[in-house]
Amino acid sequence: MPGNTFGLLFRVTTFGESHGPALGAIIDGCPPGLPLEESYIQEELDKRRPGKAPGESPRKEPDRVSILSGVFEGKTTGMPITLVIYNKDAKPSAYETLKELFRPGHGDCTYLWKYGLRDWRGGGRSSGRETVARVAAGAVAKKLLESWGIEVLAYTIALGGVRAQKRDYSVIYKNRLFCPDLQAAEKMEERIKEVRAKGDSVGGIVEIVARGVPAGLGEPVFDKLDAELAKALMSIGAVKGVEIGAGFAAAEMLGSEHNDEIIPEGFKTNNAGGILAGISNGDEIICRVAVKPIPSISKEQETITVRKTPTRIKVGGRHDASAIPRIVPVCQAMVRLVLADHLLRQLSLASFTKWKKYPFGK
Amino acid sequence: MPGNTFGLLFRVTTFGESHGPALGAIIDGCPPGLPLEESYIQEELDKRRPGKAPGESPRKEPDRVSILSGVFEGKTTGMPITLVIYNKDAKPSAYETLKELFRPGHGDCTYLWKYGLRDWRGGGRSSGRETVARVAAGAVAKKLLESWGIEVLAYTIALGGVRAQKRDYSVIYKNRLFCPDLQAAEKMEERIKEVRAKGDSVGGIVEIVARGVPAGLGEPVFDKLDAELAKALMSIGAVKGVEIGAGFAAAEMLGSEHNDEIIPEGFKTNNAGGILAGISNGDEIICRVAVKPIPSISKEQETITVRKTPTRIKVGGRHDASAIPRIVPVCQAMVRLVLADHLLRQLSLASFTKWKKYPFGK
Amino acid sequence: MPGNTFGLLFRVTTFGESHGPALGAIIDGCPPGLPLEESYIQEELDKRRPGKAPGESPRKEPDRVSILSGVFEGKTTGMPITLVIYNKDAKPSAYETLKELFRPGHGDCTYLWKYGLRDWRGGGRSSGRETVARVAAGAVAKKLLESWGIEVLAYTIALGGVRAQKRDYSVIYKNRLFCPDLQAAEKMEERIKEVRAKGDSVGGIVEIVARGVPAGLGEPVFDKLDAELAKALMSIGAVKGVEIGAGFAAAEMLGSEHNDEIIPEGFKTNNAGGILAGISNGDEIICRVAVKPIPSISKEQETITVRKTPTRIKVGGRHDASAIPRIVPVCQAMVRLVLADHLLRQLSLASFTKWKKYPFGK
Amino acid sequence: MPGNTFGLLFRVTTFGESHGPALGAIIDGCPPGLPLEESYIQEELDKRRPGKAPGESPRKEPDRVSILSGVFEGKTTGMPITLVIYNKDAKPSAYETLKELFRPGHGDCTYLWKYGLRDWRGGGRSSGRETVARVAAGAVAKKLLESWGIEVLAYTIALGGVRAQKRDYSVIYKNRLFCPDLQAAEKMEERIKEVRAKGDSVGGIVEIVARGVPAGLGEPVFDKLDAELAKALMSIGAVKGVEIGAGFAAAEMLGSEHNDEIIPEGFKTNNAGGILAGISNGDEIICRVAVKPIPSISKEQETITVRKTPTRIKVGGRHDASAIPRIVPVCQAMVRLVLADHLLRQLSLASFTKWKKYPFGK
Repeated sequence: MPGNTFGLLFRVTTFGESHGPALGAIIDGCPPGLPLEESYIQEELDKRRPGKAPGESPRKEPDRVSILSGVFEGKTTGMPITLVIYNKDAKPSAYETLKELFRPGHGDCTYLWKYGLRDWRGGGRSSGRETVARVAAGAVAKKLLESWGIEVLAYTIALGGVRAQKRDYSVIYKNRLFCPDLQAAEKMEERIKEVRAKGDSVGGIVEIVARGVPAGLGEPVFDKLDAELAKALMSIGAVKGVEIGAGFAAAEMLGSEHNDEIIPEGFKTNNAGGILAGISNGDEIICRVAVKPIPSISKEQETITVRKTPTRIKVGGRHDASAIPRIVPVCQAMVRLVLADHLLRQLSLASFTKWKKYPFGK
Repeated sequence: MPGNTFGLLFRVTTFGESHGPALGAIIDGCPPGLPLEESYIQEELDKRRPGKAPGESPRKEPDRVSILSGVFEGKTTGMPITLVIYNKDAKPSAYETLKELFRPGHGDCTYLWKYGLRDWRGGGRSSGRETVARVAAGAVAKKLLESWGIEVLAYTIALGGVRAQKRDYSVIYKNRLFCPDLQAAEKMEERIKEVRAKGDSVGGIVEIVARGVPAGLGEPVFDKLDAELAKALMSIGAVKGVEIGAGFAAAEMLGSEHNDEIIPEGFKTNNAGGILAGISNGDEIICRVAVKPIPSISKEQETITVRKTPTRIKVGGRHDASAIPRIVPVCQAMVRLVLADHLLRQLSLASFTKWKKYPFGK
Repeated sequence: MPGNTFGLLFRVTTFGESHGPALGAIIDGCPPGLPLEESYIQEELDKRRPGKAPGESPRKEPDRVSILSGVFEGKTTGMPITLVIYNKDAKPSAYETLKELFRPGHGDCTYLWKYGLRDWRGGGRSSGRETVARVAAGAVAKKLLESWGIEVLAYTIALGGVRAQKRDYSVIYKNRLFCPDLQAAEKMEERIKEVRAKGDSVGGIVEIVARGVPAGLGEPVFDKLDAELAKALMSIGAVKGVEIGAGFAAAEMLGSEHNDEIIPEGFKTNNAGGILAGISNGDEIICRVAVKPIPSISKEQETITVRKTPTRIKVGGRHDASAIPRIVPVCQAMVRLVLADHLLRQLSLASFTKWKKYPFGK
Repeated sequence: MPGNTFGLLFRVTTFGESHGPALGAIIDGCPPGLPLEESYIQEELDKRRPGKAPGESPRKEPDRVSILSGVFEGKTTGMPITLVIYNKDAKPSAYETLKELFRPGHGDCTYLWKYGLRDWRGGGRSSGRETVARVAAGAVAKKLLESWGIEVLAYTIALGGVRAQKRDYSVIYKNRLFCPDLQAAEKMEERIKEVRAKGDSVGGIVEIVARGVPAGLGEPVFDKLDAELAKALMSIGAVKGVEIGAGFAAAEMLGSEHNDEIIPEGFKTNNAGGILAGISNGDEIICRVAVKPIPSISKEQETITVRKTPTRIKVGGRHDASAIPRIVPVCQAMVRLVLADHLLRQLSLASFTKWKKYPFGK
């Protein structure tokens, strides 16, 4: 029945409910000697904080992180690192009306059916707010990956049907939607406004790219790097699909098109998304996730009460019109957690092999 | 560095190489008292056996399974169940020429870079042949699920650009491609022939549906049922994408379209694919996977030797033109493994709750 | 590298350093619906609090526990339960003098050699203070076990050479040493005073008995119930030996003496300590642990500095003269954690068997 | 419910029943590049083979091991290594009479109560024969440890009340009981004969010493090296107690006696048994286990049938009079598994620290 832990060597356990006292994470297995300060983690948390974009929830959470253990004199000690974020703006009373109802598209019903009771305050642990702990933990993974020159980017490539036409990484943090195409970003903002005005919500697609990843990460056969990425990303509430490299497009390609030919300088293409037979090949790792529209909408919908009486519902409250952009740093964090874990796994192995870290240079 | 084990309570470890002495699986955690015979497992294995369809490898492997432990007087005992399939038609010499080369799209390079050496005989453990052990283990999971009335279907819905137009489950086993649309199946067969003639290969899409799954399977937050399915399916060598329910289409939907409204009889639609907040909702579970074209093609491609000398390659040998249909029973097996594991997890919990197994009847 | 998690289904992760901001535990996998309040956990914590007995450390820690997650309206929800105890009386400066030294019998040297740095404030995570988190987590396990009528007792049977002559459970909480023999307890107290006066410390033996444990807990072959108990108890810093039932005495017995004969009413003796072939047999589970004398003594000892210069050391500070009685509730907690975990494991299995819970009645 | 896997990184799963088709082990996580041949493993297996000493079972099992996977051209490949030992001399019919009875001291009753059915052929999986798989797996660990200069010795220090008076390692393999004191060995042999003549059996004590172990193995706080050793050793069927270093004697020592003082050349004594705060300190690791007398005796005992009818039993069959010497290589194997696992764990960490492997030289 446990399920709140991720990773084998870089092992993260998260906790906390949307309207409980606090959320947080323990990282067990972070190597010692990494410089780590609260401000560094805070920076990542700030990226997923609500209240910036037009479609976002008005809930005001400063989301200040505190380190409770595992850091001494500014460095990690190898002991469990505990990160806590106290809830400040919890308004559980706002959810009283939802206590007896199942919101369509939400886990209200499945939590109740599974557990026999549920924390109905804002979805409890099934709330998107849970992801704040992932981002905090991901920041620690980021620190570890930096020491290896590994960088993970995440950005929006589609929202409400609008698609980014280019990948200009330099503008990702210059627009609220983390879109690598400023023109597309503008259209996306309009789309959000439009949809929000109708009391509706929209989905989108996030792409995550990892650069500088050495070859050799990932394990045969079940713990393939792509399998772990798929789990990590699909475990984010709003994600309904994950693809690696060419992804679903591969289903329509010929072998001769899809295969990445190899020349002495490296791979000619990257349909593999940087992973061959579950092991990183030194190329960029590329994933994409499909994000569903946020289920909390103020448009009226049919539903039932916990006693199966039919009724109608309009979800008010402080909700975003899209999980994007807030989900973007979450995807980034999850990919970091996977890479940190598999980097540590590979380091244990490396002392027995002549590890070709960057077969074609870095 | 280990990575060959799957599952928490219904725990499967597989082993074996394409041209080694044997492949197989141990299942640790199968409940006692289930009737189990070799013939039952054999039936599942026969579904992925080569040599039936036109595009398939001519390698002749009877794939006979032997049970080495865990079964007594025709019943499981609760002890580890060991299944072995001995390789009979291994021709490692056929691979001598590939010893010094990296085949594009294969794990040849990543295995060598990671491990410093590799079993070059037919890809060793990175071969598709590895999946025979998954299917054998999946058959044991099938037996467990049957006792709960859970059924898992898997079938081809696209191949080489041809798409099934309907879901007629009654014909799945009436065509070699496991396609639920006989007309589409014919076109797919033609497509394979055509592509094979050109020394090329094609990809496709497999859909997996689980029926009769009780509500309540899956754990917050990382071990969500969909996250586990994503990992299970993405861990299959040829899979490049996984989606649940509406999947990537959800990215273009409005909340009001995507949300499955609820009425006293159940969910009006199933965009969720039977999973809400990571927990099964009693509806059908629906997954789809993108299968890449098989990388072993006889068309000439650029590649390099293990010493980085550029060269050209035509992969001969006994290869299929598509991972479909052989991957279909493998997908089915992986979904069974996930459900068996999460059923056992939920059973532990159930004694503490008033478990609503089938909230809307079954 | 992680190692701060215990249990498969009732999974506890602890964190925190002796003089850091806080210590605590997350329990992932606690079933829902159990009534749980801070005061209930507090009661257990109070049992290991210093400042009561003559030989105990004068450090004044109220050890107030806060529940940060997993409890709603007074009941567990099935979500991770986070327990935090903030350090109030941390005086790291008292340890400045020990910064460059290795205290004999302590982990100072091994932590430094392993991690390359260490939190020298009172031993950091290697401090006995770490066990406060175990006791807090054990209190949650206690609640779970109570719902099954399982009770775990722990008490001192030897200290500094003085041995309890009887097992009068009714007096365990009537003396500061948790001794089931009041006369022996008095002698033990004298022994502590005597030893403390000399700047020395003493060891002892703690016995733990679990009553009402159903038959069937424990798994073949590595996760035997006794193996898990051995790990759980040996993981407590001061423990140097663990035995089950007859324990080391069994080494000198004949088979005909050691075997517990069976009659229709039950086992005639209990040399097995309630466990046969790693599985509980419905009888009382009996373990004993050897507790070493506390290494922090004010008697002068030889040691070296971190740079290997020889020196002499007298450990001052706020130290107990014996790990007993404080270790008693810790042993109790660890046995509870093992039983809670294996009870949940067995419950998953039980739905497939005709489980004989109490073969001879309870 | 699974429990047949041991280790985090060097992960061993065993399978098989006493009178089933085969026993064996899979090792997932063995590093690549280690030379490994069947004959090397066979050598270890031969040490626990019956039929040599007077008190031993007359069952004739050649115990030939076959490697089914994970080795290529004489070297490990990093893939799962599967070892199988086929049963040749299984005579299940000899156990027909025990089908309806519970043998005192055996797992017959607990297996039946837990699983609802049992493989009654020679105890099925609860048989001591299960340990053949541990020894096979331990041989692979031995190979890994050798590459680090780590050596594990195991020997008998007590049997039936006779104690070894010295530790002359050079004679361990010069007597059938693996005793480091030839005179004591003779007395032990006499003791066995004497006891066997009476249809009884005896217990004893085995000591295990690991030399050349680098400092730094073991993890705080639950996965301490001593905790893992305790679990590993207690998981052996006949073991009832485990101690490290001074062990139970520590309970009667003063701190000033027990503490190992440190001088620039190393530790002056080794009461710690080479482990401080759960982490190896570079000194010899010392464990001792209490072995109970074998429960299968031909002396008549009271017992009940599966239906609780009282009856009397004399266990005939092919049984040893003591688990010693056969358990000695099993203890050795288990300690090797623990060290191999923790060596790999530490290697992952080591790239982040200035690891002081042998702080006082080796």
